[in-house]
Amino acid sequence: DRDPASQGLGMTLDEIRPGYARMSMRVRADMLNGHRTCHGGFIFALADSAFAFACNSHNHNTVGAGCTIDYLAPGRHDDLLTAEAVERALAGKTGIYDVDVVNQDGRLVATFRGKSHRVGGTVV
Amino acid sequence: DRDPASQGLGMTLDEIRPGYARMSMRVRADMLNGHRTCHGGFIFALADSAFAFACNSHNHNTVGAGCTIDYLAPGRHDDLLTAEAVERALAGKTGIYDVDVVNQDGRLVATFRGKSHRVGGTVV
Amino acid sequence: DRDPASQGLGMTLDEIRPGYARMSMRVRADMLNGHRTCHGGFIFALADSAFAFACNSHNHNTVGAGCTIDYLAPGRHDDLLTAEAVERALAGKTGIYDVDVVNQDGRLVATFRGKSHRVGGTVV
Amino acid sequence: DRDPASQGLGMTLDEIRPGYARMSMRVRADMLNGHRTCHGGFIFALADSAFAFACNSHNHNTVGAGCTIDYLAPGRHDDLLTAEAVERALAGKTGIYDVDVVNQDGRLVATFRGKSHRVGGTVV
Repeated sequence: DRDPASQGLGMTLDEIRPGYARMSMRVRADMLNGHRTCHGGFIFALADSAFAFACNSHNHNTVGAGCTIDYLAPGRHDDLLTAEAVERALAGKTGIYDVDVVNQDGRLVATFRGKSHRVGGTVV
Repeated sequence: DRDPASQGLGMTLDEIRPGYARMSMRVRADMLNGHRTCHGGFIFALADSAFAFACNSHNHNTVGAGCTIDYLAPGRHDDLLTAEAVERALAGKTGIYDVDVVNQDGRLVATFRGKSHRVGGTVV
Repeated sequence: DRDPASQGLGMTLDEIRPGYARMSMRVRADMLNGHRTCHGGFIFALADSAFAFACNSHNHNTVGAGCTIDYLAPGRHDDLLTAEAVERALAGKTGIYDVDVVNQDGRLVATFRGKSHRVGGTVV
Repeated sequence: DRDPASQGLGMTLDEIRPGYARMSMRVRADMLNGHRTCHGGFIFALADSAFAFACNSHNHNTVGAGCTIDYLAPGRHDDLLTAEAVERALAGKTGIYDVDVVNQDGRLVATFRGKSHRVGGTVV
């Protein structure tokens, strides 16, 4: 597959069902920035991937229309980050998904909100 | 450097000055999704990188506090995407930056708004 | 008090505790727009007021730093809208609150995310 | 008209053309909060009204799908706030508008981004 998640970030898809996906990723040394915390881009990539799986979980093709992320606590080296994407609303062709990224202690590292737009066709 | 931009996406930094950065990236075949358009994650990475350069252009260390992106038009294979990050406001330790991503025809592909938070220290 | 909620919109504060507030408002004829649905500004005012109560529930003075709202379903004449504000994170002086606005059938009418910034002093 | 702007806030529509609207409002004593600055809800109402005029300036009925506001500097008593709404993109039925709210010195008080959705019918 061609999404950024596949570029060797070590993400795993832990659970998927209609309107829901959960993924995880361990923070590696090569993901740290100059402050020795996980670069926001990798946290975003994890959340965005969980969002993509959740919004395609209904077997309709969707595209991301936009998203927002807020970084709340740092990710540290070797932290296991889990992103849980939950569908909040489906209205017409638009879906809203909330994705929380927590570390192994359950601390909220980032919160992401994605909007999807359904296009023609099915996923499989 | 360790940011996602350095992971072989072929981004170039075309201009930087205080409160401003401009970067570009060509859409490659391996950046396309199943709809044959550029995966949003790569457009995000370009905008996010331009934002990071702009908000560190004052030689104070900053971190991204959060951001929003809206995808407005598809990026196609071989498109040259340019992200221009402009500082909109600095209030206390917080900065707001707008980043527009356009293609070679000047069409707006995505618009991104990032918030930075100044932390201690200088960049160089 | 001087906030917009007090301008005769008929809002009630139904519950408040640290990090939480719930308010309700009935959609009146004079709140309808030309589509015969509740004008978004009133839905926003309800959510924003619940946010303000929740983020001041710790007895520290806070100010709203910004917010986002997405309108998901229309409010109709005589609907009883309830806004429930829940604190999602407190990091340093910044707080994040999610406010869902539902109608009497539990349908999600709007979802709001507010950010607060703690300033000096206490509420009472 | 029935929008919150008409509730006696003293807003004036200073200019309107396709994709653009500019409104102004003077900060009155009854708009101040306990910090003696303009309550965010009034700044929002001004921005939201300018957005509504701009997105209906094409004579197609539209509804607000959502919006974001960031408060950057306080509004003071007697300040003259001006909200300028500019269309950034129209893609399909969706429009994106940026609204900057400045005071009489040109200082950026808030920045607002609204999304519209075109529905059937015309405005007049």
